[in-house]
Amino acid sequence: MSRPHYDLVVIGSGPAGQKAALGAAKLGKRVVLIDRRDSIGGVCIHTGTIPSKAMREAVIHLTGMNERGFYGDGYHVKQNIRMTDLLQRSRSVVSSEVDVLRNQMGRNGVEMMLGQASFVDPHTLRVSRNDDVTEIRADHILIAVGTAPARPNIVPFCPNKIIDSDELLDLKELPRSMIIVGGGVIGTEYASMLAAVDVKVTLIESRPRLMEFIDDEIAERLQFRLRDLGIRLKLGESVSKIEVTDDGMVEATLVSNKRVRAHTLLYTIGRQGATDGMNLEAAGLQADTRGRLKVNEFFQTDVPHIYAAGDVIGFPALAATSMEQGRLASSYMFNQLAEPASPIFPYGIYTIPEISMVGQTEQDLTKAGTPYEVGIARYREIARGQLIGDSHGMLKLLFHPDSRRLLGVHAFGTGATELIHIGQTVMAAGLPIDYFVDTVFNYPTLAECYKVAALDGINRVRSATHSTIDLKNQAA
Amino acid sequence: MSRPHYDLVVIGSGPAGQKAALGAAKLGKRVVLIDRRDSIGGVCIHTGTIPSKAMREAVIHLTGMNERGFYGDGYHVKQNIRMTDLLQRSRSVVSSEVDVLRNQMGRNGVEMMLGQASFVDPHTLRVSRNDDVTEIRADHILIAVGTAPARPNIVPFCPNKIIDSDELLDLKELPRSMIIVGGGVIGTEYASMLAAVDVKVTLIESRPRLMEFIDDEIAERLQFRLRDLGIRLKLGESVSKIEVTDDGMVEATLVSNKRVRAHTLLYTIGRQGATDGMNLEAAGLQADTRGRLKVNEFFQTDVPHIYAAGDVIGFPALAATSMEQGRLASSYMFNQLAEPASPIFPYGIYTIPEISMVGQTEQDLTKAGTPYEVGIARYREIARGQLIGDSHGMLKLLFHPDSRRLLGVHAFGTGATELIHIGQTVMAAGLPIDYFVDTVFNYPTLAECYKVAALDGINRVRSATHSTIDLKNQAA
Repeated sequence: MSRPHYDLVVIGSGPAGQKAALGAAKLGKRVVLIDRRDSIGGVCIHTGTIPSKAMREAVIHLTGMNERGFYGDGYHVKQNIRMTDLLQRSRSVVSSEVDVLRNQMGRNGVEMMLGQASFVDPHTLRVSRNDDVTEIRADHILIAVGTAPARPNIVPFCPNKIIDSDELLDLKELPRSMIIVGGGVIGTEYASMLAAVDVKVTLIESRPRLMEFIDDEIAERLQFRLRDLGIRLKLGESVSKIEVTDDGMVEATLVSNKRVRAHTLLYTIGRQGATDGMNLEAAGLQADTRGRLKVNEFFQTDVPHIYAAGDVIGFPALAATSMEQGRLASSYMFNQLAEPASPIFPYGIYTIPEISMVGQTEQDLTKAGTPYEVGIARYREIARGQLIGDSHGMLKLLFHPDSRRLLGVHAFGTGATELIHIGQTVMAAGLPIDYFVDTVFNYPTLAECYKVAALDGINRVRSATHSTIDLKNQAA
Repeated sequence: MSRPHYDLVVIGSGPAGQKAALGAAKLGKRVVLIDRRDSIGGVCIHTGTIPSKAMREAVIHLTGMNERGFYGDGYHVKQNIRMTDLLQRSRSVVSSEVDVLRNQMGRNGVEMMLGQASFVDPHTLRVSRNDDVTEIRADHILIAVGTAPARPNIVPFCPNKIIDSDELLDLKELPRSMIIVGGGVIGTEYASMLAAVDVKVTLIESRPRLMEFIDDEIAERLQFRLRDLGIRLKLGESVSKIEVTDDGMVEATLVSNKRVRAHTLLYTIGRQGATDGMNLEAAGLQADTRGRLKVNEFFQTDVPHIYAAGDVIGFPALAATSMEQGRLASSYMFNQLAEPASPIFPYGIYTIPEISMVGQTEQDLTKAGTPYEVGIARYREIARGQLIGDSHGMLKLLFHPDSRRLLGVHAFGTGATELIHIGQTVMAAGLPIDYFVDTVFNYPTLAECYKVAALDGINRVRSATHSTIDLKNQAA
């Protein structure tokens, strides 16, 4: 049997795998992209980012929730929203995304192969799909297999009743009530979407706050809005037991002995590197207990010609950073000059309302003992905020009171994930917040918040300075 | 009669006047803001920018036009949209904007006065409202009275039939058909909104293109989309005669002898500085034939203590630049250090779809003989573009092929006016487009277009370089 030989075999066709394959192909390398699903795109396109964001767009449009400031609290674009209504857009977007991706790979000469890849030896892979088995050889291999939801034994998973986040999109009907265990990004995003379509949601998080990496004030605002949407937040509570009761309901018992009942429970804690079945040992590799691989700064595993990138290497596990890692890995393996990714990268959280941040939070700065001042703009004070009826949105700048350099930007509300990139650019360029004051922004835009927040911040620094002088005078 | 004395009298409470008044008040000056309307805010809040943008938001929401890619071409959120539906949001936004503004002025100690201001002498103004007449004196005066639609004698204006853009919002019903004369920003914005609610629009522009200051390719895309919305574009055509015919229709005769008929005609050519009735002569000032005032770089008129800012001084006459001018004028008059506004300012055009640009166009660069390369990203290739169903949007970067510095950014589609500020910041910081390649953008966002466009542009520069080398080899 002749075994095709590649410059690069990429295992996993999510964001990291795609960008690595494209990068190598553009250098004229022979590349194959392998995926064990029935279609390329990975979790990102098929069960994660894209379907959940499509569902979110459908929720926002069909409920008409953003228009209620103008048309009244009872306003709905569609009454009786069902699961099929929420998934229609998702199906259409997923299929076009796969199309775009397949074309992009084809145009650039990346071969595609479906099947489970496993190592035969460090340079040889066996790809099996049903009864088809192919062996291929490669000079370089990139493992970009991503993660799957963790399914701990103590959770009695059961279709439609006790599910993980991959299974949520398979529900035929929206449950009337849902317990969501885990107040991380995935749990909180789904909690807000489901509550918006009138599912009674109880969100349980063992820490005292949702998503501890975000700024305290922003998290407080989010929690307030979520409760306003009707979500019951159980913070600082853990689940000790989950079971389906005789009447078909799901019951979660908390460590504090409270019981919570709902029609369905969504378990969102933990994700596991999807390295099972790859026979890593044959390559001389070993995953950690969470199925993850360790890499050096060039994305090389312990076996130098085998690289890994994306969620399978852990933090930060964002589609955006995974793309960057994939692109860099293929540059490094073929000795191309490449700037390492900027350490200034944004987080985008697609809750309703959405959140985005770049740089440090107030609590980070306080912990580090870095002095800072705050400048705030509220959407309701900005013409664009009023035009779109977003009265809760805000933009917060954290900056050094002497140099006025930006230390962090935190956005809450419509367009937050887009808006953040203006602040990110100013941070990357090392400009002081005076840039925002001297800049003309389109009117009416949300981007104007930067100017309003900068003026607010500068005024606070000035009054602080004045008070200091007054104190000095009094002391003298 | 004792005449109150002010450090600064601001005449006109639009964007320029507001920012000037606030700036001076924050310096502890005694300031009064005068407006001849029944309420503060100027054309911007009452008949121009804000009401038209509120109408635009209502059009986009109520038609459901952006959702048709998912729900079919016949999809509507509301059937039989009427003028009152379009104005409901406008009324609510205008009243909150006035509220925000009044509070902001009050909080900062700016006095407000309604009435027509006219000069008694260079330091004295008479403010009349009905029978009330007050005289006030000031050290400094800022004229920020804005503009009003020009009403040339050859146009037989007539309520509901032959109207200017201020009167459009007074229409009780949407006409079934409309002729719009003038394909500038105002004419084109209204044309797209009205066509979206099924008014049959004919747009007449004497130049061969709509809005000649925008990039050729973007204009072409806009014209294509407008025709797609059902608008008849008559480019390179001028109107020689306008009349109401016996059957109550409006008929416009073109110089080319064609006739166009519709239920209503909207005349949008030209705006006139609103300096009538100010008795400028008493201050030693004279407006030009279009009612405008000339100022120096510090916004001083020929009479040094009298300043002018905003639309009344002409180009670029955008709310955003007017704010900046007002802020700077009050800084200069009270001897505050102030950076002149950056010459890199954006244009935002709220057509459907929206357009924004910063820097130079392809035709500008060609005319100047500046070499450039182009990098393009299409929304339909970006996950976010597919999620929102915008298949026509695009972002275009123009950059120098050697230094890779950005020379211009042109955005077409959803969020264009927000998106442009990322490119503007990169231009202001003088970064090459490689910044976009090395930066992590939130996924899925439209901001990702910057990365895709930069990669596209850099690839073009590379292939261009390769071809040059090939040619050299062949020559040798």
